[in-house]
Amino acid sequence: MRMADLAFTEYEALVREKSPIVVIPCGALEQHGPHLPLATDAMIPTMLAERFVPAFGGIVAPTFTYGVRSQPKSGGGNHFCGTTSLWGSTYALMVADIVEEFGRHGVKKIVMLDGHTENQPFLVEGVERALVNLRRDGITDVRVIRLAYYMAIDAKLQATLFPDGLLSWDLEHAAVMETSVMMALSPSHVRLDRIPDDPPADFPIYETFPIDPAPIPCHGVLSSAKSATAEKGRAVVDTLVAEFSDLIPRAFR
Amino acid sequence: MRMADLAFTEYEALVREKSPIVVIPCGALEQHGPHLPLATDAMIPTMLAERFVPAFGGIVAPTFTYGVRSQPKSGGGNHFCGTTSLWGSTYALMVADIVEEFGRHGVKKIVMLDGHTENQPFLVEGVERALVNLRRDGITDVRVIRLAYYMAIDAKLQATLFPDGLLSWDLEHAAVMETSVMMALSPSHVRLDRIPDDPPADFPIYETFPIDPAPIPCHGVLSSAKSATAEKGRAVVDTLVAEFSDLIPRAFR
Amino acid sequence: MRMADLAFTEYEALVREKSPIVVIPCGALEQHGPHLPLATDAMIPTMLAERFVPAFGGIVAPTFTYGVRSQPKSGGGNHFCGTTSLWGSTYALMVADIVEEFGRHGVKKIVMLDGHTENQPFLVEGVERALVNLRRDGITDVRVIRLAYYMAIDAKLQATLFPDGLLSWDLEHAAVMETSVMMALSPSHVRLDRIPDDPPADFPIYETFPIDPAPIPCHGVLSSAKSATAEKGRAVVDTLVAEFSDLIPRAFR
Amino acid sequence: MRMADLAFTEYEALVREKSPIVVIPCGALEQHGPHLPLATDAMIPTMLAERFVPAFGGIVAPTFTYGVRSQPKSGGGNHFCGTTSLWGSTYALMVADIVEEFGRHGVKKIVMLDGHTENQPFLVEGVERALVNLRRDGITDVRVIRLAYYMAIDAKLQATLFPDGLLSWDLEHAAVMETSVMMALSPSHVRLDRIPDDPPADFPIYETFPIDPAPIPCHGVLSSAKSATAEKGRAVVDTLVAEFSDLIPRAFR
Amino acid sequence: MRMADLAFTEYEALVREKSPIVVIPCGALEQHGPHLPLATDAMIPTMLAERFVPAFGGIVAPTFTYGVRSQPKSGGGNHFCGTTSLWGSTYALMVADIVEEFGRHGVKKIVMLDGHTENQPFLVEGVERALVNLRRDGITDVRVIRLAYYMAIDAKLQATLFPDGLLSWDLEHAAVMETSVMMALSPSHVRLDRIPDDPPADFPIYETFPIDPAPIPCHGVLSSAKSATAEKGRAVVDTLVAEFSDLIPRAFR
Amino acid sequence: MRMADLAFTEYEALVREKSPIVVIPCGALEQHGPHLPLATDAMIPTMLAERFVPAFGGIVAPTFTYGVRSQPKSGGGNHFCGTTSLWGSTYALMVADIVEEFGRHGVKKIVMLDGHTENQPFLVEGVERALVNLRRDGITDVRVIRLAYYMAIDAKLQATLFPDGLLSWDLEHAAVMETSVMMALSPSHVRLDRIPDDPPADFPIYETFPIDPAPIPCHGVLSSAKSATAEKGRAVVDTLVAEFSDLIPRAFR
Repeated sequence: MRMADLAFTEYEALVREKSPIVVIPCGALEQHGPHLPLATDAMIPTMLAERFVPAFGGIVAPTFTYGVRSQPKSGGGNHFCGTTSLWGSTYALMVADIVEEFGRHGVKKIVMLDGHTENQPFLVEGVERALVNLRRDGITDVRVIRLAYYMAIDAKLQATLFPDGLLSWDLEHAAVMETSVMMALSPSHVRLDRIPDDPPADFPIYETFPIDPAPIPCHGVLSSAKSATAEKGRAVVDTLVAEFSDLIPRAFR
Repeated sequence: MRMADLAFTEYEALVREKSPIVVIPCGALEQHGPHLPLATDAMIPTMLAERFVPAFGGIVAPTFTYGVRSQPKSGGGNHFCGTTSLWGSTYALMVADIVEEFGRHGVKKIVMLDGHTENQPFLVEGVERALVNLRRDGITDVRVIRLAYYMAIDAKLQATLFPDGLLSWDLEHAAVMETSVMMALSPSHVRLDRIPDDPPADFPIYETFPIDPAPIPCHGVLSSAKSATAEKGRAVVDTLVAEFSDLIPRAFR
Repeated sequence: MRMADLAFTEYEALVREKSPIVVIPCGALEQHGPHLPLATDAMIPTMLAERFVPAFGGIVAPTFTYGVRSQPKSGGGNHFCGTTSLWGSTYALMVADIVEEFGRHGVKKIVMLDGHTENQPFLVEGVERALVNLRRDGITDVRVIRLAYYMAIDAKLQATLFPDGLLSWDLEHAAVMETSVMMALSPSHVRLDRIPDDPPADFPIYETFPIDPAPIPCHGVLSSAKSATAEKGRAVVDTLVAEFSDLIPRAFR
Repeated sequence: MRMADLAFTEYEALVREKSPIVVIPCGALEQHGPHLPLATDAMIPTMLAERFVPAFGGIVAPTFTYGVRSQPKSGGGNHFCGTTSLWGSTYALMVADIVEEFGRHGVKKIVMLDGHTENQPFLVEGVERALVNLRRDGITDVRVIRLAYYMAIDAKLQATLFPDGLLSWDLEHAAVMETSVMMALSPSHVRLDRIPDDPPADFPIYETFPIDPAPIPCHGVLSSAKSATAEKGRAVVDTLVAEFSDLIPRAFR
Repeated sequence: MRMADLAFTEYEALVREKSPIVVIPCGALEQHGPHLPLATDAMIPTMLAERFVPAFGGIVAPTFTYGVRSQPKSGGGNHFCGTTSLWGSTYALMVADIVEEFGRHGVKKIVMLDGHTENQPFLVEGVERALVNLRRDGITDVRVIRLAYYMAIDAKLQATLFPDGLLSWDLEHAAVMETSVMMALSPSHVRLDRIPDDPPADFPIYETFPIDPAPIPCHGVLSSAKSATAEKGRAVVDTLVAEFSDLIPRAFR
Repeated sequence: MRMADLAFTEYEALVREKSPIVVIPCGALEQHGPHLPLATDAMIPTMLAERFVPAFGGIVAPTFTYGVRSQPKSGGGNHFCGTTSLWGSTYALMVADIVEEFGRHGVKKIVMLDGHTENQPFLVEGVERALVNLRRDGITDVRVIRLAYYMAIDAKLQATLFPDGLLSWDLEHAAVMETSVMMALSPSHVRLDRIPDDPPADFPIYETFPIDPAPIPCHGVLSSAKSATAEKGRAVVDTLVAEFSDLIPRAFR
C-alpha cells in the first residue's frame, strides 16, 4: 500500500497487472499554531490516503512534505519561524519530474491529494508540464486528478463542525477543522492546552508585500480552534474516507 | 495618468516629486463566451484603474494583457481557441522583472490590479522574487499591493447583481458580473444577442488533467449572463471606483 | 481586426475558415526623449499594423508593450527612469509561450512586427523555441515572420526623411524618423516644443558595463529630431502600410 | 526531535535558545532489488539520524524522500520501474530553497545526511547556491555539512561486513551493507527469501547513454547480499550512531 | 599571456599586483563556406588578442569556442551541418558564471572580444547579470568592455578591403574580410581553391522561421571571397592590433 | 581530425559517409598547484584524444575548457584564484545544447572524454537531457559514452606510477599522475622546481560549506608530486592511447 515499503518487483507487478491508482499526498511544513505540528498539512492527506486506498487497491506514494510558500490569508505567511517552503517554481518542477516518472513506470491514474492551499496552482503547473512532456514521449494515457481533501466537506459536515455557523473557510487555518481532524487521526500531536482563543484575524481585501504582520495573530491561528473535538474530527475522517473510496475510482472510469 | 503616454521626463518628475502610486492592470486573453471579448479580463481592470487613479494622482502602467493559463473551473480551461496564455513560471518572471524596474525608478507604491484569477499565485511569486532582489540591491522601501478588483464586491453589491441570490462566485466566468460591468464600461464590446442561457456548469470537486471537457459548456460561459444589465454594471463600477479611490492610498499609509 | 475585441467564437471562426495572418506588435516602454511618449516603440508598430492588416484580412494580437532591456547605442540605455524592461531571457520565454498558443489555436501565419531593436535576438530565440516545441507536438506547419518595421525604409524614403543626408541609422533613437512617424500617427503624443537640438551622441566602438553615461545625452535623444515633420511621417506611414499590405501576404505564400 | 512533530512555537524556542543542529536525511525512491524496499536510501539515513541526534540535542527535518536520477553503476539505472527520481537541476533548486529557509529561521548548523550517491553533487550545488543567496541577504554564519553515512564505515567495520574481503564499494547497491543495515533497523522490510545470489555486475570503465541494460542484473542488485546478517547491520548502526554523535557536534565547533 | 598556460600562483600574482586586463575571445563553431574552418569566428579574435595583449600586459582567457545559434542573414543559419551552437539563454548563463568568477578573483577589467555577431545580445545579457550578482556580493568595481573586432574596421581599411566598393557588411560572412584575415593569420586554414564565386545572397527584409533555405547559398558564403588576399588581411590585422593595443587600456582609464 | 580546423563541407562529408566517432574533451580551468597550468584538466584529455582518434578515424570537437565548480577534496575547492568555473546547472545546459547539435548533424557516436571529476554528474545530466530532446525530435540512434580518462589506469599502471604504493586516488590532484602525464605530453608546461613537497591533505569524511580552508594546502596540491617523472607519464599516455584506440570503437559496436 505504501510505495516506500514495497520492493520494486512488487510495485512493478502491481503496476503491470492491476493498473493501480497512485495517490501522492501533497503537504507542507508550515506553522499551525502552538497546538498543532508543523507537518499538519502533510500528515492529514497522508493519513487519509492510507485509510482510503485499500478500498480500491491504490498505492500511497511518498508524501511531498515540503510545500509552497505560505501566504498570510491562508497559512499565516512565510515569515513564521518553522514554516519551511519551496518557491512555487521549484515545486512545479518537482511535481513535473515525479509525475513524468510515474508515467514512465506505466502508471495511468495519479491523484495529487492536497492539504495545503498554496500548492494548488503550482501542482497544476507541474502536472500540465509533465503531461506535455509525456505526450511528447508518446505516452498519452496518463490521467491525473488534483483533489484538495477539504473540498469534500459538504454542508452536512460543515454543520457538524460548526454548529453555530462557519465564520469563513478562509480563516480555517489551524482552526476547528484541522484541529478536530488531527485529534481524530493523531491525538498525541495535538496540544489541547495551548489552543489560542482569540478573535479571528481580520484581513483587508488586498495583500501586502512585503508581508504586513499587523493583521496576523502572532500565534499563527487565523480563527479559534477552541471548539475542536475528536468527535468532529472522526466525522470528517469517516466521511472523507468513505467519499474518496468511492469518488476516486469513479473519477478514473 | 497613463504611463505609456508620458514622456520619460514627465514620468521622472512625477516619481521624484510626488511618489505616485503606480497601478499595473493584470488581465488575460481568454475566452469569455460568445458575447464578451477575449480581452475582458484585461479591459475591466484597465478601465477601472483609469477611473480611480485620478483620485490619488496615480499612474496606470501598461496592462499585462496576456495572463496565466486558464483553468476549467475559473475560466473554462486552456483548451479553448483564442485563450492565449503564459505558463505561470513565465508570468512570475515577467512580473518580477517589471516590479524590479519600478523599484529601480524610485517608485515605492505599486498595485497589481488583477482581473484574472489564475494570475494570482504567480503574481505573488513574481512580486516576492522582485522584493528579494530589490532588497539585495539595497532597495527596501518598495511596497506592493495585490488586489483582485472583484474582491471588493460586498454583500450589498452582490444583492444588486443577484437579486434572486448568487449561484456561486466560482461560476461567475463571463456571467452576470463581468457582462454587466462590460455593458457599463464598454457597451459596444457586448453582444447581447449572443448571451447563452444554459444551466450552470456542474464540476466535480476535483480537477482532471488532461482537461476533461465534459462538464465545460462549449460556449465557455460557466453560468448564464442573461440577467446582466448596464445598470448593475454601473453599480459595480461606481462602487469599486469610489472604494479603490479611498482604499488604495490608505493601504500605503 | 483587433484580437482583443473579438469574442472567441468570432476568432475561432476566422482561424478555422480564413487561416488569417496574425500580427503581434512588439514594442517597449523606453525613454524617447522629452518629446515622445514612453510607449513610442509599442505605439508605432501597433498603429501601423492596424492600418495594414485590413489589406489581407489579418488580425492584430495584443501588443507586447514591455520590451527587452534598452542598450545605450540603440535606446539610450536601461538606466533611464521610465525605461521599464524585461530581461532577454524572460522575453524569449514570453514569446515562446504565446507563439505556441497561436500554434495550438491552428494559426499558421504569424508576424512579429518589431519596433524595438533590442527585442530582435530574443524574439528569434523565443520563436525558435516555440517551433521546436510545436514540432514535438506534431504541429509542423506554423510559419513565423520577424519584421522590424523600420527595415522597410528604402533609399527613397530615406531621402525624404533626410534631405541633407542621414547621419546614421544607429543614432535614430527618438530622432527624425520616430518623431515624424508619431507626428503622423498620433500628433497629440508629440511635444514639439520640447525637442532637444543637440549634437548627436558620439559613442566609442565598444560598449561599457556598467553603462558609462558620459556619451549618452541626458535627454535620451541620440540625434536631433528638429527636422521632423508630420509630412515626412505620413510619407513613411503611407509607404510602409502599402509595402506591408503586399509584402506580408506574399511572404507566406 | 522530529521537526515535523513540533509545533512552530516549540521549534522556534529551540532555534532561538539552543542553536540546535538540524539534520536533513537525503534519500531516494530507487529499486533496491527484490528484497529491500524502494525507500531504502531514505529510510537508513532517517533512522540513523533519529538515533544519533539525541546525543547533541539535534532536530531531524523531514526527509527528502525523492532523490536524483539513478545511475547504472551506483543504483542500477533510472530505467527500473519504481525508481522515481528528480532531475539533478530540480533537486539542486529544492535543496537551495530549503537551506535558505533554515537560514531564515536562524538555524546556523545544518547536516545533509546523504544515503544516495547520485544526490551528492546536486546537494553541493544546492547548498552553495543557498549560501550565496543567504550571504546576499546578510546572513553569513550558516554552516552546512554534507555527510554520506556510508563514508564513516572504516576498515574495522569493513572487515566485519566482509570477512572474506570486499569486492568493491561500487557494487554495494542493495548488497551486503544495505541489507544488513536494514535487517538491523527494520527487519520487517527485508525479504530474506528473495535475495538474489548472482555473480556481481561487471561494468565497463565507461558509461553509455541511453543506458545499456546488458551489464545490469535485471533484479537490480549489483553484488550478492547473501552474506548480509542483522548482526553485521547492528555493528554498522552502532558504530555510525556513536561516531556521528561525536563527529557532528565537533564539526560545527 | 595565455591564462590556460599559467599556474594559478602566477595568475594570482599578476591579478594582485598588476590589475591586468583579461580578454575573453568569443567565437563560434559555424560553417564558413568550403574554404574556411568551422572555428573561424573563434580563431580570429583569439589570434588577434594574442597579438595585442602584450602591448598592455593583458591576459588572454580561454576562448568561448561555441557560440550562439547562427542566423541566416549573419552566418548562414543554424541548419548547416557543422554549425554547432548554444541557445542564447545557455550562452548568457555561461557568460555570467565566468564573468562572476573573474570578479571573484579580483579582476577589474574584462574585455569580451567578439567574433560572432549572434553572440552580442547574449554576451550583454550575461555580463549585465554578472554585474548585478557581483554588486550583490559587494563587488562594484568590475568593468567589462564588449568589443566586436570588426567594429574597428574604419573607412580607410574598408577601402583597402573593397577597392571597388563594399557590397554590404551584412553579407560579409565567410567573405572578403574574414578570408583575408585568415590568410594573414593562419594561411594553412584557407582552401583558396574552394572559394565559391557566386552572386551575393539576396535576402528579403524579414526573417522566416523555420528557416527558409531558398535565399541562402548552399555553400554558406553570403558574398564572394574571391578578392580576398593575404595582404588585405595583414592590413586588417596590423591596424586592429595597433588600434586595440591603444584603445583597450584607454577604455579602462 | 580537429573539428575546429575542418571546413563544414569536409565535416559534413565525414559525418555522412563515415559515421565517425566525435570526441569532446571536457576539462576545467582550475588551480593545479604552482607547477601545473590552470588548464591541465582540459589539456590532458585534449592531447590524449588527438593521439587516439586517428586509430578509428575519429574527430576531436573543441574542448569544453571551462568546467564545473571545483570541490576541496577533488580539486582544492572553488575559492582559489584562477579556478574559473561554471555552475553545474549551466554546464548541463551547455552539454545538452551541444550534444543535441551533434545529433542534428547526424553524428551517432559521441564520447565525452572527461578530465575533471566535478564535471561527471552534470555531463550525465546534460547528455540525458539531450537524448530526451533528440528522441522527441525523432532522433533515437545517437549513443554517447562518458569516459574519464583516468578510469583506464589499471593495477599495472598504478604500480608503475606508485612503486611504493598509492596513497589514495582521491588525493591525486596536481599530484604524481597528472604531473607525470603533463611531463610526457607538454613538458614546457611543468615547473619542476616549484613542485611542493608537503604531507598529503587530510580531510574529514564530511564536506563543509562555506569551504573550510583549514585542511586544504594553500598551494592547492593534495599530495606530493615529487615522484612524478616523464617516464611514468609516457607509460600512462601510451597505455591509455592504446587502450582507448581499441575500447572506444568497440563500445559503439
